[in-house]
Amino acid sequence: MIEDKNPKRTPLSELGEFKLIEHLTEHFKIEQKSTIKGIGDDAAVLSYGKKQIVVTTDLLVEGVHFDLSYVPLKHLGYKAVMVNLSDVYAMNAKATQITVSIAVSNRFPLEALEELYAGISTAAKLYNVDVVGGDTTSSTSGLIISITAIGEVEKGNEVLRSGAKPNDLLVVTGDIGGAYMGLQVLEREKEVFKVNPNSQPDLSMYTYIVERQLKPEARKDIVELLKQLDVKPTSMIDISDGLSSEVIHLCKQSKVGVDVYENKIPLDPQVISTCEEFNIDSTTVALNGGEDYELLMTISQEDFPKIKGNPNLTVIGYMTEEERGMHLVTRAEEKIPIIAKGWNALND
Amino acid sequence: MIEDKNPKRTPLSELGEFKLIEHLTEHFKIEQKSTIKGIGDDAAVLSYGKKQIVVTTDLLVEGVHFDLSYVPLKHLGYKAVMVNLSDVYAMNAKATQITVSIAVSNRFPLEALEELYAGISTAAKLYNVDVVGGDTTSSTSGLIISITAIGEVEKGNEVLRSGAKPNDLLVVTGDIGGAYMGLQVLEREKEVFKVNPNSQPDLSMYTYIVERQLKPEARKDIVELLKQLDVKPTSMIDISDGLSSEVIHLCKQSKVGVDVYENKIPLDPQVISTCEEFNIDSTTVALNGGEDYELLMTISQEDFPKIKGNPNLTVIGYMTEEERGMHLVTRAEEKIPIIAKGWNALND
Repeated sequence: MIEDKNPKRTPLSELGEFKLIEHLTEHFKIEQKSTIKGIGDDAAVLSYGKKQIVVTTDLLVEGVHFDLSYVPLKHLGYKAVMVNLSDVYAMNAKATQITVSIAVSNRFPLEALEELYAGISTAAKLYNVDVVGGDTTSSTSGLIISITAIGEVEKGNEVLRSGAKPNDLLVVTGDIGGAYMGLQVLEREKEVFKVNPNSQPDLSMYTYIVERQLKPEARKDIVELLKQLDVKPTSMIDISDGLSSEVIHLCKQSKVGVDVYENKIPLDPQVISTCEEFNIDSTTVALNGGEDYELLMTISQEDFPKIKGNPNLTVIGYMTEEERGMHLVTRAEEKIPIIAKGWNALND
Repeated sequence: MIEDKNPKRTPLSELGEFKLIEHLTEHFKIEQKSTIKGIGDDAAVLSYGKKQIVVTTDLLVEGVHFDLSYVPLKHLGYKAVMVNLSDVYAMNAKATQITVSIAVSNRFPLEALEELYAGISTAAKLYNVDVVGGDTTSSTSGLIISITAIGEVEKGNEVLRSGAKPNDLLVVTGDIGGAYMGLQVLEREKEVFKVNPNSQPDLSMYTYIVERQLKPEARKDIVELLKQLDVKPTSMIDISDGLSSEVIHLCKQSKVGVDVYENKIPLDPQVISTCEEFNIDSTTVALNGGEDYELLMTISQEDFPKIKGNPNLTVIGYMTEEERGMHLVTRAEEKIPIIAKGWNALND
């Protein structure tokens, strides 16, 4: 057999995370009648009888997604569940079950895993989901957590990324940028600790943003709120990679443009003050920060009276015709194109 | 805050894989009406309307579950799917969807991932399952694959591990021990290659067992066969860890004993000859080898005429009252207790 001495080797960093997934999955075809929506949304939608179920999965890798030098294992377990539930809620579904798989090296004692599972258990209890399966195995290095979440949604109530229409309002829940600034504070304390291991970090000024990073909450309440308000968003996504990245997903999949108003983006005062302290532009943080696990949705203009004045929901812009493009309208009323930055895990 | 200077640190190896999972998951309670069966079987069973769905997940770690020095990536992708589908079939369910998550270090070029996905895609097509989601991320070292499989089964047709009754027949599909002996051959060739990198391995004498190791097939056909034969097993499990380990699972969860007849265990001639060559006892291989992905089930005696003479199904023993214990009846008609050995990933 003649071997190819120079096989083609394309570095993964050439593609980036989103393109890589797209490239690897482009040949997968949907054959099952029960598959309503496959790859390409926050979760898959499957139909079984009257009910539809949604399924989503995430893999968290030590050294890539978390740093155990400042993330307590209990928080890590909690957050790993939130990351997945957030995808279920982004489909307008109710989360019902999760499976949890972990790979762990022998450097972890049992007590460390107990901590991790205590966090998972707390999250499952609080969000009322059953842990129905999983796998525990060893790894050659580091901790890996893989969680799959399952949820249910009445037929027709699921909200995809692809339903936004021109003139729809762009709405974000809560406030954003906090998780990223919390990470900045923790990274700084880690550096201080390296120099002086006896230092006791005073994080009292940063409690909100540090909690946003270490113990985010998925917006189960928003799915319930939308039902109460009788609002079905036309599209929805959760904010895991940063506002700009998620806005682009909605626009591309819905084939619309967008104008996002800088002065409407909801920021917590602690985010603003910490941005000033770190000399970072708060809008940049809001657009590219990620890990807030808030929901970003579009709603029809006629639903505006129903959400008006609700402290959980902030209108930050509106959708336009696709050819108008995707723009941030700055405080100085300049229009700047929104660029895909996202969280490019494979460029690290 | 007074810190505990000597926190308790229990090495994971003290517990072993099965006990570890049991220990970590014992506090999880089932709260959802839709959860029929949670942790503790091949897959979870969830009820949505008339249909029930089953969910199972597995995590495969480089250096623990596979060795890329002799496992082609395409085969690895294929096998990773089989491992999960096998769990779905072990519930007597039809596999319908999978999600695929991978973590990969930058040492892998895109072409390597394409190979991996080609194997996943081939398996999905051949077994008629849709790939409906996943996650691709980077790892600090090595390749990690996490697959979740979903299947469906009519209400009441699911087969758990816990339904075996005394006097039921113990039935195994296909033949066993091949995957383990294939691994022995591949490990030997790897050692030869280390000494002489120009050696070309001649595996032609071992094609069946090497294929059993590298490209196992999940027994989708058995679920269909059982339906045709109108046989609903009283309990079922897939053979991933070795016959003895799976027999023990069925007995413990069904609260029964078992007599397994050594001379009934189906072995391929290539397994027998390779065992002779390696000077290993073939019964030991069959009992503890693992990775065959055959199905082990119990059926009621009255169903025996329906399966009699079927080349896919071999009766290897029968279930007894629990207090009779679990035994292997040897060719010399001695009774030897069956001991849990299994594949103890965390002792590596």
